[in-house]
Amino acid sequence: MKKIFIIMVVALPFMASAQTNSIDSAFIKKISDDVLQNGQAYEWLHQLTKNIGGRLAGSPQFAKAIDWGKLTLDKIGADKVYLQECMVPHWVRGKNDKVSITAVNHKSESKPLDALAIGNSLGTTDKGVTAEVFAVNDFDQLEKYKDQIKGKIVFYNYHFIPTNISTFRSYADAGKYRRFGASRAAKYGAVGVIVRSMSESTDNNPHTGSMEYNDSFPKIPAAAIGLQDADNLWKLCQQSTSVKVNITTHGTFLPDERAYNVIAELTGSESPDEIITVGGHLDSWDVNEGAHDDGAGVVHTMEVLRVLKALGYKPKHTIRFVLFANEENGARGADKYAEEAKGRGEKHVFALESDDGGFTPRGFGFNAKPAVWEELNAWKPLFEPYGGSTFTKGGGGTDIEPLKKAFDIPLAGLQPDSQRYFDVHHARSDVFENVNRRELLLGAVNMAALIYLVDKYGL
Amino acid sequence: MKKIFIIMVVALPFMASAQTNSIDSAFIKKISDDVLQNGQAYEWLHQLTKNIGGRLAGSPQFAKAIDWGKLTLDKIGADKVYLQECMVPHWVRGKNDKVSITAVNHKSESKPLDALAIGNSLGTTDKGVTAEVFAVNDFDQLEKYKDQIKGKIVFYNYHFIPTNISTFRSYADAGKYRRFGASRAAKYGAVGVIVRSMSESTDNNPHTGSMEYNDSFPKIPAAAIGLQDADNLWKLCQQSTSVKVNITTHGTFLPDERAYNVIAELTGSESPDEIITVGGHLDSWDVNEGAHDDGAGVVHTMEVLRVLKALGYKPKHTIRFVLFANEENGARGADKYAEEAKGRGEKHVFALESDDGGFTPRGFGFNAKPAVWEELNAWKPLFEPYGGSTFTKGGGGTDIEPLKKAFDIPLAGLQPDSQRYFDVHHARSDVFENVNRRELLLGAVNMAALIYLVDKYGL
Repeated sequence: MKKIFIIMVVALPFMASAQTNSIDSAFIKKISDDVLQNGQAYEWLHQLTKNIGGRLAGSPQFAKAIDWGKLTLDKIGADKVYLQECMVPHWVRGKNDKVSITAVNHKSESKPLDALAIGNSLGTTDKGVTAEVFAVNDFDQLEKYKDQIKGKIVFYNYHFIPTNISTFRSYADAGKYRRFGASRAAKYGAVGVIVRSMSESTDNNPHTGSMEYNDSFPKIPAAAIGLQDADNLWKLCQQSTSVKVNITTHGTFLPDERAYNVIAELTGSESPDEIITVGGHLDSWDVNEGAHDDGAGVVHTMEVLRVLKALGYKPKHTIRFVLFANEENGARGADKYAEEAKGRGEKHVFALESDDGGFTPRGFGFNAKPAVWEELNAWKPLFEPYGGSTFTKGGGGTDIEPLKKAFDIPLAGLQPDSQRYFDVHHARSDVFENVNRRELLLGAVNMAALIYLVDKYGL
Repeated sequence: MKKIFIIMVVALPFMASAQTNSIDSAFIKKISDDVLQNGQAYEWLHQLTKNIGGRLAGSPQFAKAIDWGKLTLDKIGADKVYLQECMVPHWVRGKNDKVSITAVNHKSESKPLDALAIGNSLGTTDKGVTAEVFAVNDFDQLEKYKDQIKGKIVFYNYHFIPTNISTFRSYADAGKYRRFGASRAAKYGAVGVIVRSMSESTDNNPHTGSMEYNDSFPKIPAAAIGLQDADNLWKLCQQSTSVKVNITTHGTFLPDERAYNVIAELTGSESPDEIITVGGHLDSWDVNEGAHDDGAGVVHTMEVLRVLKALGYKPKHTIRFVLFANEENGARGADKYAEEAKGRGEKHVFALESDDGGFTPRGFGFNAKPAVWEELNAWKPLFEPYGGSTFTKGGGGTDIEPLKKAFDIPLAGLQPDSQRYFDVHHARSDVFENVNRRELLLGAVNMAALIYLVDKYGL
């Protein structure tokens, strides 16, 4: 009898754990089966990208996206769907961006490059800015030759680091040239900057994105060019002592616009005042359909709601599904969401964002304390069948970062495979046709599984 | 002193293992860095797909591919490059395949469907075969209604199972309708078959592939149609009691052709008579560029050779890099390779194939005995940084299967992410443009790492 008792004491925790595990893996299988059979994410993405298209914050298209987001969440049937007002910047690109080069030492022919003004940059006159190009590889070279920059257009030909397996690391590294390159060059008297696109793509599409000026220096025009044009321009600068470029851009800020975060809720059955947030951002750049960035995150969020409802899951905590406004050039929606949550004295417990594309899922990045990290890692086997079991330290997303500051909660970001992301990111090629249906759906499967586990067990 | 001795005894194995591990991880990092910076796989794939294109065994294009393969391997600089003769079947599609439907109970209009004759199928007369359609979901329905099949064209509308995470499982399940559907229907008097393509793609491309006739029954024509056409035809068959279809195909076998496996070798420094094989197949279907199937495997194989040479790696074993002939409709190259190896009394130790596409790598499937499986699993952490650490039981490839039979050696197959594979597999869309450069290169990184470990430690 005693022996049996000992066996039971030893075995019970394992049995409980095995049982829990099998209930959880069965429920996650249900999630997966339902999403892969009945998922609507792909069809919703088609609506968002093809009926609305590019939707930069403040634009009429963004207003349409808000209406569409609310209507769609209403149809899925949350307990509440509502709008949260916030003012957003309204940058407009204006007429066609233009960058053309003339190699003075060669034939004096003007050759157009495929260029996009960098978001938030201010335009030139209609005649544009014409000046000699000063080509540098990086900021070190800029500093080295700072005395030769005055009156010139600086061309940053900084390359994506090809050897990083995660392309996001290369983006984090190269991004500073787009973000800060203009003011860094203006400090030394440059009259414009051209930036090699943040990409390793094999095409020549330029990639836009946001930048910010340092108010201490002149606000010079800034444009991105594609990789083939960048390679050619670099070669030309090596061959010719005087290569002239004309940059003509028309970017300007109109007054801030009223916009909204679109929010749906499933009310918690046990701890309705404890909130789990899952979201993506509804805005996109103006030059594409924002399919991967971040149409995917928007429809992932909707799909998590749909499948939990479809399976009749009653969450313990309140789950908020948030389509954030203005991630791309201001993050005002994110700030507003955290600010109001803090102001109302809400209790937040966890937030998950999808803003790394709709590619096949690899796992999640977690911004969590060591004890929570351990807890999370115990769930990894549950994600293995669905491709999302690579858990890395560090992660979240621009839209949920302010929640971390406000509530010191664990954050997670879905990490799809990153190899193709920067082929299309902020470029014209970020369109519906470049999203694969099954890859998109599997992202939602893994997200729904994580939300289910966090809701069930807490963190 | 004694205490120190004990610590050393305990610590030494860990230190040795840690050291080995760090040497191996450093070498694999070198492989990865070199491939991502200097890899040629993408450029080779461009040559193979754009200069040669579709290359079914026996075709003039396949002969060109053999020449190109040998020339390219020569340039990379193996210790030996040679051709291994084998006779291959020579099936030709002939003129355009045609499937058209007439819904007799509706408007009597003939509507063309997008169709491809199934590979190895025999054609009709120029007028084709016209008969009523008998639509079934699966073989069970065929058997149930076998008395109603006579004189009709059977339409197999069997769907890919959407809930499998690995799409290869769905292919293994659905493939029998393409392979055996014709003879199964001919047994009951059917005069032709139409098969729903083995895919979950969102387009309407038909997918060909191989089939085989059972000599006991008439060899009736067989064609595949795309998913949209299949859905429409199925609906029509539900609405209308008499839907007629005309199948006109022109498939025929010409006499067998002389062809070759293309083989390169790095001679082993310690055990030159022990052979490791790594390969892919050089032939493809005729209707596309065979970019993923199996251009990717061909250039993966070449890239493994290139990077081992570039890093000055001197293998202990002889490594054979094999571009196999005729995987798609006969596997004669595979049979020949194993047969000659056996005949010469060679000693084979391991074989790896890449024939699941050039998508981002997930890991490997292994066909190995339990003890070897354990050994292999100890290497998993080395693959984690490169995305290839999901090791599954079962795997290999059509071209290396005969080696298993001949030598009872462990086999491995590269397992790229499978979500997109059957969108393009055997369809017109399997073209260079649908291969991503970094994804392709990372496949070669993981393969080279595995070949390095197997060569260094044995199995």
